[in-house]
Amino acid sequence: MNLKNDLLLRTLRGEKTERTPVWMMRQAGRYLPEYRALRGKYSFFERVENPELATEITIQPIDSIGVDAAILFSDILVIPRAMGLEVQLIENEGPLLPHPIKTADDLKRICVPDVLDRLHYVMSAIRLIKKTLDGRVPLIGFAGAPWTILCYMVQGKGSKTFDEAKAFCYRQPELAEKLLQMITDTSIAYLKEQVSAGADAIQLFDSWGGLLSKPDFEQLSLKYMRQIVEELKGETEIILFAKGSWYALKEMKQTGASGLGIDWCIEPHMARSLAGPDITLQGNFDPAKLLAPSARIKEEVKQMLQAFGKGRHIANLGHGILPNVPVDHARIFVDTVKEQSSLL
Amino acid sequence: MNLKNDLLLRTLRGEKTERTPVWMMRQAGRYLPEYRALRGKYSFFERVENPELATEITIQPIDSIGVDAAILFSDILVIPRAMGLEVQLIENEGPLLPHPIKTADDLKRICVPDVLDRLHYVMSAIRLIKKTLDGRVPLIGFAGAPWTILCYMVQGKGSKTFDEAKAFCYRQPELAEKLLQMITDTSIAYLKEQVSAGADAIQLFDSWGGLLSKPDFEQLSLKYMRQIVEELKGETEIILFAKGSWYALKEMKQTGASGLGIDWCIEPHMARSLAGPDITLQGNFDPAKLLAPSARIKEEVKQMLQAFGKGRHIANLGHGILPNVPVDHARIFVDTVKEQSSLL
Repeated sequence: MNLKNDLLLRTLRGEKTERTPVWMMRQAGRYLPEYRALRGKYSFFERVENPELATEITIQPIDSIGVDAAILFSDILVIPRAMGLEVQLIENEGPLLPHPIKTADDLKRICVPDVLDRLHYVMSAIRLIKKTLDGRVPLIGFAGAPWTILCYMVQGKGSKTFDEAKAFCYRQPELAEKLLQMITDTSIAYLKEQVSAGADAIQLFDSWGGLLSKPDFEQLSLKYMRQIVEELKGETEIILFAKGSWYALKEMKQTGASGLGIDWCIEPHMARSLAGPDITLQGNFDPAKLLAPSARIKEEVKQMLQAFGKGRHIANLGHGILPNVPVDHARIFVDTVKEQSSLL
Repeated sequence: MNLKNDLLLRTLRGEKTERTPVWMMRQAGRYLPEYRALRGKYSFFERVENPELATEITIQPIDSIGVDAAILFSDILVIPRAMGLEVQLIENEGPLLPHPIKTADDLKRICVPDVLDRLHYVMSAIRLIKKTLDGRVPLIGFAGAPWTILCYMVQGKGSKTFDEAKAFCYRQPELAEKLLQMITDTSIAYLKEQVSAGADAIQLFDSWGGLLSKPDFEQLSLKYMRQIVEELKGETEIILFAKGSWYALKEMKQTGASGLGIDWCIEPHMARSLAGPDITLQGNFDPAKLLAPSARIKEEVKQMLQAFGKGRHIANLGHGILPNVPVDHARIFVDTVKEQSSLL
């Protein structure tokens, strides 16, 4: 099916576009009243595992905010769950994995699963979303980067430092390698199926990459993201988003990814000089700035667009949209990108 | 009184030293059994406000680990408390300010206090620590950077994003400026008294600087740290540590500070190239790496020392030592710096 709006894909391929495409991480989320309504009725995994609900949620921000891409409503922790680890998602608190991986014995409790069997509901959702979108905008599929998934599988819950996950890797490097490879193999199979089901592009989220030093990032994160890009890049466009890992932009570019997400703590010109000219950058509005008055949002979006310049830029936040952002402010962000980027 | 070990001060002044000085952020903390023993007996503010207890705790890591500097045992939140805001410190949970600043009316509840009156216990502690240290090592005094203090005064508790603190600054910029200036004025008076009481150097902790974009960091943080350095730099050596704010190293250097703290997410050569040659860098071992086996700690400390090179370096962690670090591993860190840096 032909896309009516393919700005995102053309930008990822480095082609000329009439304006900058825009979407927002967590755009299908709690700031939307129509999402909160479903959240009151269904548990998190009900919303994720029911293709009709996932479709409805995925499409909400397309209708409501007018973004240029849909992103699959799901969670990065479907992977540890499919690998055999119990994952609970406690509303307003975050994930809890009551039996985390600590030893070689623990590793025997998990496997590289048949993703079509364990994650069939994701592919059903993708097919239904594509059908419902009817070519309005492309659909982005996603997975967590292996390092970020390991963080949860080992630490068992959110953490400011993920020191237990790091200690696991430092103390049992062979075990860590084995676990990271299992996550990687699962993710490759999973993402290939997402593409087969209809995902037009893929984003890898390395939410906790920025907790690592550059040498550790190379060894514990990038090594595995590189394998994923290698396996996927002939089939789709891939965006790598390693929050805080500005120091590895050059190396991430060299994986062959089409785009790199950046957060607001690196200036666009610095990111460009580190990543080089031949790659699309995505970002980097401070999510908290959507809490500012609307005139300031408009002004700063304009500044951001000018800083990135024409082409090779996907406008986005530097992290997920916050639940307390007024819907109007999200719209102002999107509308200002659309208006101002056509003037660049 | 002459210092028997003035490695830290000479390094901050850019003088030649026989080896690299070493201390650790939060070195007087929970990883030490002798600290945990006092923690079981006295509440946090008892430990902070009793000069004998603060002295005992400050000196514990000098005796136990052999670091080259003592740092005053206190807390950055003594400042909001002295300004008239209630601060609770809940063990294992963090700070709680039950009546945070949200409006212009709230600002009337606080003031720039007479620091000698409200924080006399800190100066008493400093005098007693200096007397007890008897010149063994220098004593570092400290305060939180105004931005980080505002974060707690407005958000009222710890946060991953401090979005309410940011929203306050974006929505009420004049109020934010007024509050930041009140914190700055209080901090200047406070730090001058610390120096008068005997502190040999001062560190400003901007724990949440790294949540800001570069333009916001300039406006909400650096502008006020600059005033503090300006007022103090004739009287003492000042180290600025803005965790995550690698992008402003050059501008922080230009304040006239003697040293800049860096975390492990920036490589030493990159920090040096951003900050320039004429300033001491402090850091930047990943605190979680002290959970690694001892051979790996030794190897990586050696690599860190080589990366910083000879001179103009104070060995430290890139953030506070974690409570679950074995005391032996903290000793290995310190001992390896001492041994290996003399070979540089």
